[in-house]
Amino acid sequence: MTRPSLEGEEGLIAALRALATHPAARGLADDTAVLEVGSETLILTQDSMVEGIHYLPAQDMADVAWKLAATNLSDLAAKGAEPLGVLYTHMLGADDAQFISGLTDVLTEYDVPLLGGDTVSANGPRCFSLTAIGRASHTPAPSRSGAMPGDAVYLTGRVGAAMLGFECLRGGPDHDTAAYRRPVPLLAQGRALAPLVSAIMDVSDGLLLDASRMAGASNVTIAIDSSAVPIATPENRREDALRWGDDYQLLFTGPADASWPIPVHKIGEVHARMDARLLVDGIAPDPGDTLGYRHSR
Amino acid sequence: MTRPSLEGEEGLIAALRALATHPAARGLADDTAVLEVGSETLILTQDSMVEGIHYLPAQDMADVAWKLAATNLSDLAAKGAEPLGVLYTHMLGADDAQFISGLTDVLTEYDVPLLGGDTVSANGPRCFSLTAIGRASHTPAPSRSGAMPGDAVYLTGRVGAAMLGFECLRGGPDHDTAAYRRPVPLLAQGRALAPLVSAIMDVSDGLLLDASRMAGASNVTIAIDSSAVPIATPENRREDALRWGDDYQLLFTGPADASWPIPVHKIGEVHARMDARLLVDGIAPDPGDTLGYRHSR
Repeated sequence: MTRPSLEGEEGLIAALRALATHPAARGLADDTAVLEVGSETLILTQDSMVEGIHYLPAQDMADVAWKLAATNLSDLAAKGAEPLGVLYTHMLGADDAQFISGLTDVLTEYDVPLLGGDTVSANGPRCFSLTAIGRASHTPAPSRSGAMPGDAVYLTGRVGAAMLGFECLRGGPDHDTAAYRRPVPLLAQGRALAPLVSAIMDVSDGLLLDASRMAGASNVTIAIDSSAVPIATPENRREDALRWGDDYQLLFTGPADASWPIPVHKIGEVHARMDARLLVDGIAPDPGDTLGYRHSR
Repeated sequence: MTRPSLEGEEGLIAALRALATHPAARGLADDTAVLEVGSETLILTQDSMVEGIHYLPAQDMADVAWKLAATNLSDLAAKGAEPLGVLYTHMLGADDAQFISGLTDVLTEYDVPLLGGDTVSANGPRCFSLTAIGRASHTPAPSRSGAMPGDAVYLTGRVGAAMLGFECLRGGPDHDTAAYRRPVPLLAQGRALAPLVSAIMDVSDGLLLDASRMAGASNVTIAIDSSAVPIATPENRREDALRWGDDYQLLFTGPADASWPIPVHKIGEVHARMDARLLVDGIAPDPGDTLGYRHSR
């Protein structure tokens, strides 16, 4: 039986959501699946990197491996999870030893076991898929959908460092590139915050875009005070830093008068839902403003 | 730091094994990872399919999706696991709706939730990676390494049907193609057998090749009585049927006088380790006999 064609990625995602009815899937609208097994709560995520789309063939494959694991671990961090291990599919090709070197670095750094996976031959641009499994350190595991009017909005640290690193790698001004090449999953911070937040997610695609998504998931409006956002860039790049992803800071909401166990930056407020999901300095962004990096990457 | 290049897939797998030291990884030598979390035992596996390598662009994408999920579920079956869900990476392209149709079919048939995953853009031949998570129905979960001298060797059903289906699809004699297109993961059979077997695995790459692997993992010699192997082919294709994979029968060992809870076929015996891992009708296969489909597929 041939079904009607889907219209691009949105149609596909709608079809997948129709299939993902189990509560653990969280409607495919959260960073991870949250699966209760006996008395345990498992956190599961799978993200992939495609050559020419998520990384360039000229990149150091050790950095590609680091980023593949680190971005998945960042999703666990946003759930306050303790990583239990990863499985991944290695597509054979150039610099395999270099890839394994970077994978060893990241898994050693965060003490995460390699549990299994698959090796396959390449037939064109390579693709690497990694699944990370964690266990919730606090239940219920937080989500991006719990922001409440009256909450404040917080960020764990500076945005824009990855952007400057990316630009340097592309021939721009000299800058440390580590923030782009080897992002840090904020696992300890996520575990410290999980019992205390009303909503939390990692910032992968741009602070404004991800804040807008959190607002949508929570059915609220989030108002960002752009001058309060800590940035790693010169002031004249603030607008770009707010829209660039890859820094993997944790964005979260909670009581405005809370005492937080780690250094955090208050960057805005949560309001009852208005027409606009997002306000930046009190103004709804222009509809043509993408707010970040939208993709199927 | 640039490390020495690995020599092909064997070098890569050696490097991955050096990294996969956690006992749950089982040295990457088993069908799945077996991870103890609290009082639960999780079974985890990830397998991938690459266009032009594991499937041809002309194939029905619904069948590709079915096979992707079914082969992973077959790995869970070989551990006697109850599936808890799957995550997968969908690479966008032609016939996405058809793919989702087949994925819906297989997940509905075996009552397995879609928990999450990723969608990415294609940049050449497509690759689909799927992770299946299960919970052991019996602990310790069986492995392929427990065959004991004196055990008998058993198979759950006929081999060769997938081969005839594949040949028909390639223009050969008319034959039902379902066995090749839509393999059946023997989940209920695996759960029934798990408490009783000494070793078990699914036959994905060819009965003789997989029996040889089980013998290697168990440090024994397995002697197959080729005439006792149930085949789905005419008698003149017996030798081929013994070497063709894709039927996903369960191969297992256990007491010769056991009473089994499901229909099984006794096809050989386990001996103390000899020079040859495998004997077929009492004779060690010629070293040039690949015994099955060796791959990084």
